[in-house]
Amino acid sequence: MRFLRIMLASAIAMAVTAGPAIADTAPDPQDKLATVVNSGGKTMKFDWPMLKIGTAEYSEGPTGVTVFRFDHKVLAAVDVRGGGPGTVNTDWLRLSYDTPDLDAVVFSGGSWYGLENVTAVGTALKDDGVRTGMWDSIALSVGAIIYDFGDRRLNEIYPDKRLAQAAFHAVEAGTFRNGASGAGRMTRTGDFFKCKAHSGQGGAFRQIGDLKIAAFTVVNALGVVTDREGKVVACNPEAGWPKNLRTADLMAGLPGSRRGNWKGDLNAKRNTTVSLVVVNQKMPVAELQRLAVQVHTSMARGLQPFATLADGDVLYAVSTGEIDAPEGSAGLSSPEMGAVASEVMWDAILASVPEQPKPVPVVTVGKDEMRGWGAHAGDYRFSSYVSIRITEKGGKLFAHATGERDAFAISRATPVELKSAGPAMFTIPGRYPLLLKFERGGDLTVNPGSWQQSGKRQ
Amino acid sequence: MRFLRIMLASAIAMAVTAGPAIADTAPDPQDKLATVVNSGGKTMKFDWPMLKIGTAEYSEGPTGVTVFRFDHKVLAAVDVRGGGPGTVNTDWLRLSYDTPDLDAVVFSGGSWYGLENVTAVGTALKDDGVRTGMWDSIALSVGAIIYDFGDRRLNEIYPDKRLAQAAFHAVEAGTFRNGASGAGRMTRTGDFFKCKAHSGQGGAFRQIGDLKIAAFTVVNALGVVTDREGKVVACNPEAGWPKNLRTADLMAGLPGSRRGNWKGDLNAKRNTTVSLVVVNQKMPVAELQRLAVQVHTSMARGLQPFATLADGDVLYAVSTGEIDAPEGSAGLSSPEMGAVASEVMWDAILASVPEQPKPVPVVTVGKDEMRGWGAHAGDYRFSSYVSIRITEKGGKLFAHATGERDAFAISRATPVELKSAGPAMFTIPGRYPLLLKFERGGDLTVNPGSWQQSGKRQ
Amino acid sequence: MRFLRIMLASAIAMAVTAGPAIADTAPDPQDKLATVVNSGGKTMKFDWPMLKIGTAEYSEGPTGVTVFRFDHKVLAAVDVRGGGPGTVNTDWLRLSYDTPDLDAVVFSGGSWYGLENVTAVGTALKDDGVRTGMWDSIALSVGAIIYDFGDRRLNEIYPDKRLAQAAFHAVEAGTFRNGASGAGRMTRTGDFFKCKAHSGQGGAFRQIGDLKIAAFTVVNALGVVTDREGKVVACNPEAGWPKNLRTADLMAGLPGSRRGNWKGDLNAKRNTTVSLVVVNQKMPVAELQRLAVQVHTSMARGLQPFATLADGDVLYAVSTGEIDAPEGSAGLSSPEMGAVASEVMWDAILASVPEQPKPVPVVTVGKDEMRGWGAHAGDYRFSSYVSIRITEKGGKLFAHATGERDAFAISRATPVELKSAGPAMFTIPGRYPLLLKFERGGDLTVNPGSWQQSGKRQ
Amino acid sequence: MRFLRIMLASAIAMAVTAGPAIADTAPDPQDKLATVVNSGGKTMKFDWPMLKIGTAEYSEGPTGVTVFRFDHKVLAAVDVRGGGPGTVNTDWLRLSYDTPDLDAVVFSGGSWYGLENVTAVGTALKDDGVRTGMWDSIALSVGAIIYDFGDRRLNEIYPDKRLAQAAFHAVEAGTFRNGASGAGRMTRTGDFFKCKAHSGQGGAFRQIGDLKIAAFTVVNALGVVTDREGKVVACNPEAGWPKNLRTADLMAGLPGSRRGNWKGDLNAKRNTTVSLVVVNQKMPVAELQRLAVQVHTSMARGLQPFATLADGDVLYAVSTGEIDAPEGSAGLSSPEMGAVASEVMWDAILASVPEQPKPVPVVTVGKDEMRGWGAHAGDYRFSSYVSIRITEKGGKLFAHATGERDAFAISRATPVELKSAGPAMFTIPGRYPLLLKFERGGDLTVNPGSWQQSGKRQ
Repeated sequence: MRFLRIMLASAIAMAVTAGPAIADTAPDPQDKLATVVNSGGKTMKFDWPMLKIGTAEYSEGPTGVTVFRFDHKVLAAVDVRGGGPGTVNTDWLRLSYDTPDLDAVVFSGGSWYGLENVTAVGTALKDDGVRTGMWDSIALSVGAIIYDFGDRRLNEIYPDKRLAQAAFHAVEAGTFRNGASGAGRMTRTGDFFKCKAHSGQGGAFRQIGDLKIAAFTVVNALGVVTDREGKVVACNPEAGWPKNLRTADLMAGLPGSRRGNWKGDLNAKRNTTVSLVVVNQKMPVAELQRLAVQVHTSMARGLQPFATLADGDVLYAVSTGEIDAPEGSAGLSSPEMGAVASEVMWDAILASVPEQPKPVPVVTVGKDEMRGWGAHAGDYRFSSYVSIRITEKGGKLFAHATGERDAFAISRATPVELKSAGPAMFTIPGRYPLLLKFERGGDLTVNPGSWQQSGKRQ
Repeated sequence: MRFLRIMLASAIAMAVTAGPAIADTAPDPQDKLATVVNSGGKTMKFDWPMLKIGTAEYSEGPTGVTVFRFDHKVLAAVDVRGGGPGTVNTDWLRLSYDTPDLDAVVFSGGSWYGLENVTAVGTALKDDGVRTGMWDSIALSVGAIIYDFGDRRLNEIYPDKRLAQAAFHAVEAGTFRNGASGAGRMTRTGDFFKCKAHSGQGGAFRQIGDLKIAAFTVVNALGVVTDREGKVVACNPEAGWPKNLRTADLMAGLPGSRRGNWKGDLNAKRNTTVSLVVVNQKMPVAELQRLAVQVHTSMARGLQPFATLADGDVLYAVSTGEIDAPEGSAGLSSPEMGAVASEVMWDAILASVPEQPKPVPVVTVGKDEMRGWGAHAGDYRFSSYVSIRITEKGGKLFAHATGERDAFAISRATPVELKSAGPAMFTIPGRYPLLLKFERGGDLTVNPGSWQQSGKRQ
Repeated sequence: MRFLRIMLASAIAMAVTAGPAIADTAPDPQDKLATVVNSGGKTMKFDWPMLKIGTAEYSEGPTGVTVFRFDHKVLAAVDVRGGGPGTVNTDWLRLSYDTPDLDAVVFSGGSWYGLENVTAVGTALKDDGVRTGMWDSIALSVGAIIYDFGDRRLNEIYPDKRLAQAAFHAVEAGTFRNGASGAGRMTRTGDFFKCKAHSGQGGAFRQIGDLKIAAFTVVNALGVVTDREGKVVACNPEAGWPKNLRTADLMAGLPGSRRGNWKGDLNAKRNTTVSLVVVNQKMPVAELQRLAVQVHTSMARGLQPFATLADGDVLYAVSTGEIDAPEGSAGLSSPEMGAVASEVMWDAILASVPEQPKPVPVVTVGKDEMRGWGAHAGDYRFSSYVSIRITEKGGKLFAHATGERDAFAISRATPVELKSAGPAMFTIPGRYPLLLKFERGGDLTVNPGSWQQSGKRQ
Repeated sequence: MRFLRIMLASAIAMAVTAGPAIADTAPDPQDKLATVVNSGGKTMKFDWPMLKIGTAEYSEGPTGVTVFRFDHKVLAAVDVRGGGPGTVNTDWLRLSYDTPDLDAVVFSGGSWYGLENVTAVGTALKDDGVRTGMWDSIALSVGAIIYDFGDRRLNEIYPDKRLAQAAFHAVEAGTFRNGASGAGRMTRTGDFFKCKAHSGQGGAFRQIGDLKIAAFTVVNALGVVTDREGKVVACNPEAGWPKNLRTADLMAGLPGSRRGNWKGDLNAKRNTTVSLVVVNQKMPVAELQRLAVQVHTSMARGLQPFATLADGDVLYAVSTGEIDAPEGSAGLSSPEMGAVASEVMWDAILASVPEQPKPVPVVTVGKDEMRGWGAHAGDYRFSSYVSIRITEKGGKLFAHATGERDAFAISRATPVELKSAGPAMFTIPGRYPLLLKFERGGDLTVNPGSWQQSGKRQ
């Protein structure tokens, strides 16, 4: 009967929507996915017991969630700047109360669907008996999401309540995972210049005397990550671009430098960078708001362009109130605190960049081996939306997409030839090289590694 | 092991929180509660096929959720005015895009925990295959919550994802339930004057030519519901107050008229009125925002006071865009549209008021019957937080609370005598009369009816 | 040469503007107008030495300005709700700093041109040497304006820097002028129902123990002033409307109750109510913001409708910080403070209503007297925009407008007959009766009294 | 009597203010200052007839104002980010109406006193007869101010109504003055690192096909101007700093790199960068708001740090609507338009930097010449606040301040020796070298040139 209802819902939706195509089969269910906690990325260690962090992922997406849990209620502020934000409970934070009431900040993949992860941490605090329904004890969990669907992957699995609560229950102090982990598992940067570089989440920490400052960011920016020398940190470059690619040079070439065949899409809201800055010093709420503004604005250096219509950039600032502000001139002024925190945030941006996959060279293969290729022919299902059909013709292998959507460089229009890249490995060269690996079990893995997509042989 | 984690969590929480008492037993689980859909209240019929509404409740709370589902994506605006709001995705609505993108509005009990219901409708749209991860198809579900914990009931059950999705799957056109239903199941008004009147959700509809205007509101206001004659619509009055209680008179008596022994509490954020106004006419987004502002402001007539620090008032305005605005002077101007919609909203406020329980008179009972009272003695568990112990002494029955919190007029401090109110029925007279009914099965029901609390005999 | 430039400017403007007609003569100069300070209205006395108030007017408008000057810098918050606001420096107030820095609040007629009065008080504080350029001494003057042009009068004189500084230098403690004074000199209410009632500024004061609360408002609302019984306080009623006009009845009749031949105009932003609430108690800035919101919202009772697209409603809330908040439950909670202040504000709204001019009956005149009428024939200039030509025909007097705009009921289209209303007095009966008085000096006064318009015989 | 009032005002102010010292003499009057229009800086030419710009200055300050006048009403948006803004009528711009209604943008020195210049342009449009009191014709002039008092100069002259109207009447198309002109006459950058570099206003223009983009900014930032190579563009460096000063290195050295003896002051709100970006393409108002956000954020590259508590950063974005947006992919997407405009704005920032004064070397002087030095001894009055006393002792010249405030390196505490720097020229070496020139007429000029201060011999 549930199936019937879904069919009905689809039917209604098809009737009323002039928009994108609707699934003609039931969407992929979420309830059997395995949760993987505190995995992936490179571990960053820091000393701050009251701040606990956990990640959880569905590798089948891949997609994930990152939970920042504070040992006691803290003061928070928010700055929303992007053109496509997804947020929870920011209205409360804007009322400028000076009472610490925040329990957790949650960043999630899954676009607006991932907002479920923010609310799930609030209810987990209730379900666990940590917080209650008494008005001054109610759990406050805020957060924001990033877009990791579309041409990033071949399925639409999203982080959900179950995953968020797994991450919440896995929080631990002193550790953050830089790179393709948690909410940063399936992010991308540089689409503005068609770089389509893999991205991730990044964190950085600095201590000055008793003052602790930490910055965390999930980078899924339309812009390119830029270092303090002005260099583009990660990009699949256009043919002919120099090795030492400078952001200023790309910008100088505008609008030409980013022209291409997918142009109109830049108004699509498919990017977002969501960030958190935490200080352990007591701060008046107005100054905490200024900190949020100053640090968020400063990110326009490390991410260029930033805060565009296509981004949904959000930054939370938290004061844990563990130490008092030093008296008089011994402490940092607001602009100083903001400037130091901005540098920590730039470090976090840089730390978010994972090692990029290396293009795999085409190799020449002997006739014998080629004879075995025919065994790969068949249909591989990646999701209810995407399947790839492998065909053999004249001793060559071809691939085309047979579902509703294309599969990266494998379109539905014309079969594309697969070039050998080693035993059971094939590639489709281009600006965004594609790697296909036929597994022993008969399945097909696209782009093996942190961002791999798995197709089941039908 | 889950139990261990909860214990651990509690232990940590106790260590770091100076706040309210923490449960010493596992909180009451949510996962076995029965969902009741489209139930309760008085049915209002109206003709608007594209607007579908569903409610779902956990009667054991009682608490619930109300889902407003639009057949196609609609244009929306929001106005947040209260001092204690709980919202989802309002930042997006503030960007003034003129593209219809809203799928649903969700109102929920459960305070901030109830925000899970807003996100759950978004993911239900995805799980059902109605919406996808394509950037212009992603489900947009917004909403707001009301506080229905604290001294309103003896447990902290909250509406959760499961309940919200049940309400979502139960939506139907043309029907709204006025009174104690859905998100309005456990609301209250008039705490400002210590009225503590039962409240609910209300809706109203008006058609002028082709123009349709509907208003819905879940009234949990600190203020009193006031009709167009200036009369208080529902209140447990203080002794000596006149029958025809006028709001203006109560206001004129300020601050005296609301003084009492629980005064400092008025800064507690335990109220909220969340509302929705829908029109079928195409409107520029700036005018839709003005409609939200004008209608929300006008509610200060029907709810007095309104938009206080203790309220979390939020109003969404939606234009379904089904008809074009009439040319020239044939249509309503913005102030006219706002004024008419404000009257519809006032009707909705008035429609939210359920019939109040009648005080049950104390009756004299024969000796024989009294002899049977001793059988009621025992412990009755309402939740992990509240139990009531019934004792018999000298032929009289007494009650006192034995858990962490009081049970309405039954405190933990001193046993209070129960007065007979009929067979197996007892009352504790006062401004807020309490009714206790010992059920045949051995359980104890407090305040039988729409807002009843059930205690299990231990 | 200045004239040449003006001509040039006009020419350019005419070339590029598709809007309203442009003056073909130099606009009326402001620099010879007489300033009248602390005049008009009914005096309200109150005891609050640190709050000083002054008004100044150009009677030739009439139009004016009201200045609220605080003896020392105070904490302020603002709530902007209307669809057509005019404000200065509100961005600063929104930053939630807890440092008192406000010197003055200025309300002015003259629409956006009147904003000059807000800035003029800031520079007056500098010119007088009270404030300096040191960053923590700079004068902060905020304010808002109301629209008093259009069909309210026959000229476009506006309150300017000179007038504002006159008002500022005339401030005195303990006195406020209710009615047609200062910024409230040429205001109007009830255009929503075509009442076109004269309005004004209103103030009220209440002391509870040491706590002082004052409310001031310049009422130029699209809505009608409504008292606590629900009655319309001032309106030129449509023929057939009952004597005891109730706002709820007018609202119930919508949209019919306000239909007429000038309908489309309701989107014109020609109304605004600007308000100020002052308390002497120290308040956290977040609570002061809540006070602003609660009181501003409550005004929807006394002004119906309120906060429409056509209104530019703004409210400032000020805490002078003269007394500490009482400890614990002795003080008012935030909602209580808000509710009491809201009642004071409703009192202020009611106090703003001036005595309305009485319609003057048509009287029969003897032939002898009528023979003298011919002497009134001629041209009377009210401004560069409006002149009235009086003609005599068949022993009757007629009037028509000869400038660019109509003069109330005297249109440019057709001469309208003047009915005798006494010696040298004539009237044009109708919903808005017009009174014309030919002065001994040869000039023509329209509507003698607080809102009179003066025409110079040419 | 006016003098009496001022005395009285001062007395009151002294009684109630615990703040900075109050003048014991009448402040310096503004009414005899000469207005200098369209002067200073380096002229930038561009082709855009509908955008007219004028500047006016009081050289005695020096301080000034810059007026941007549009030939017809245009659509505008605003983004306020700094911690100390001064603005006019931004609330209106936030309502997202899609009707062009803006006439002018005004940037001014004089801190909040300079807001008078914004309102003065509105009233000038009325006085000139270009705009009227008809509700859809009312002049809309918005703007923002920068702080140019304090230790920047020795007087507190501010740009006022007269100056603003002079600038307004001097507007012309096609010309902008980069550097020390208009509102940028007395600005400074880099105080965060104690650079105290002279700054100015900057503009840049770019045309792509029919699309015109102009950016203007008055740079008075706490941060340092940074070029696309990451170099600090202007700074009085600390001893030992490298020649090729990089912003990233200064930032890396935080908090040490900016420590000094005037530390606590960084919370003082004495900076601000106010900016304007104009495009000639029609844009939906929501996209224009995104443009404002993206460009404003991008300025964090050229000004580091940016948007601090001490800055009052404001940016206006204007669409003149002269050309339609190209169909489909021929036009720039929102992020592209934003990115290109951001580069134009960076160019404008760089163009704002004037040539810095060169330190004047100390020269050895013959005995004969030294004998004439005694003639310079005397009192030189710079304002009611600052006087310098020159004394001669042992053949050497000394200076100390005798008014209420210090005069740059010349303090009130101890006389400082003047070193000869040429005929009648003296210097006080240091990080911020001071130059004193005794004029033939007997007056004393400090720092001759664009930012000179003039003292009258008493």
